Amino acid sequence: MSISKSQLKIITSLSQKKYRQKHNLFIAEGVKVVNELINSNFIIDTLFCVDDFISDVSVDKIVVVSEVDLKKISNLKTPNKVLGLFQIPDEISIQNNGLIVVLDSLNDPGNLGTIIRLCDWFGVRQLICSKDTVDCFNQKVVQASMGSLTRVSVKYIDLESYLEAVHLPTFIADMDGENVYQTKLPKEAILVMGNEANGVSKKIIELVKNKISIPRFGQIQKTESLNVATATAVLLSEFKRSF
Amino acid sequence: MSISKSQLKIITSLSQKKYRQKHNLFIAEGVKVVNELINSNFIIDTLFCVDDFISDVSVDKIVVVSEVDLKKISNLKTPNKVLGLFQIPDEISIQNNGLIVVLDSLNDPGNLGTIIRLCDWFGVRQLICSKDTVDCFNQKVVQASMGSLTRVSVKYIDLESYLEAVHLPTFIADMDGENVYQTKLPKEAILVMGNEANGVSKKIIELVKNKISIPRFGQIQKTESLNVATATAVLLSEFKRSF
Repeated sequence: MSISKSQLKIITSLSQKKYRQKHNLFIAEGVKVVNELINSNFIIDTLFCVDDFISDVSVDKIVVVSEVDLKKISNLKTPNKVLGLFQIPDEISIQNNGLIVVLDSLNDPGNLGTIIRLCDWFGVRQLICSKDTVDCFNQKVVQASMGSLTRVSVKYIDLESYLEAVHLPTFIADMDGENVYQTKLPKEAILVMGNEANGVSKKIIELVKNKISIPRFGQIQKTESLNVATATAVLLSEFKRSF
Repeated sequence: MSISKSQLKIITSLSQKKYRQKHNLFIAEGVKVVNELINSNFIIDTLFCVDDFISDVSVDKIVVVSEVDLKKISNLKTPNKVLGLFQIPDEISIQNNGLIVVLDSLNDPGNLGTIIRLCDWFGVRQLICSKDTVDCFNQKVVQASMGSLTRVSVKYIDLESYLEAVHLPTFIADMDGENVYQTKLPKEAILVMGNEANGVSKKIIELVKNKISIPRFGQIQKTESLNVATATAVLLSEFKRSF
């Protein structure tokens, strides 16, 4: 079999959010990530795979393709046996318990993917993003999250309304915040991380009282702030280490 | 002025390690990173910059170029005013004190850059890499380290000989290690991080007694291991938080 023109057109279009929304589909690639999605609640639309990709997916959803055809549709440097189209799941309601991570205007897909993976590791089930945060079904995010997207629920909403309404202690990661190592952190809480260049936006900072920071140990004050993904790693570790 | 053919040839060649070593030069780009290098001990060879890049570098080291020419030599999607050639510094001897990070066969330049930045933040002055670890003067590493390369000394040596000879408590990050939150960590120590796919190599694991791990809080055991850079963030935080 080969890839039809209409299939090729759809696959290509899915690099753009508006077409992902129109077709209600997103792309995942590679044996590992695709298998994690297959074995989750995500619904398979079509798998385009070379003939030695083994799965027990029903045959009508599989299109066996040549290495050459797979390379045509792949966004990876080295395509890895399979490209899958999956349905974007229905939105589920926010779970306001446990530890929740909120992202304000995150731009970089690699950072979002890494943070989804961190949430998964540290048992955070709910990730809440401002509407202008990079889309979690962007293919770079899907690849960087390594399948963790199947275990972390990501919701895009208006952060101001959400933070005004929610009844959980809320902490903003902020360079001028209190030393996190000296802060008593509750088990149930919201952690707000900001944009790569500008941090958390002013209107959100005004809403939230608690600010925490990771102290700089390097002697020279020039050190650039930590990358948002590595800062999230340290802060999630601090929230979870005592429980 | 414009870029001469011989300059263009050298700049292009510097994407390869062997030519960086031959010419003893590496590339840094963008106002922020270049300025950090200018204001450090690194020696400038040549700056290729558009005419509104302002610095007090002596004129004989500056080549003013057009935006078009800068784009020709740049490896960035959006060139940012300046591309600098700097001399690779002479190797200095290893400082065996404080907290030292050792990297075993790290492949990804982004990860190495992020780890150099983390070392800088957490006050680690010495980073030791196996000889097959990605070169720290690889341009992606230079860009990802955001100038932290000026404050962290990176040395490539044979790890086995080093770890056999050194007299510091040594800890390997290993999935099967002791829970780091329950481990007493000394102020002076060596932390060994492994390759992205395979972790620390067997011969190094055999040399080192202490193994530490970051516990997984997610309930589902499928969660992929943490990325090496985010794991380094959490472990450096653990080493430094109590002192």
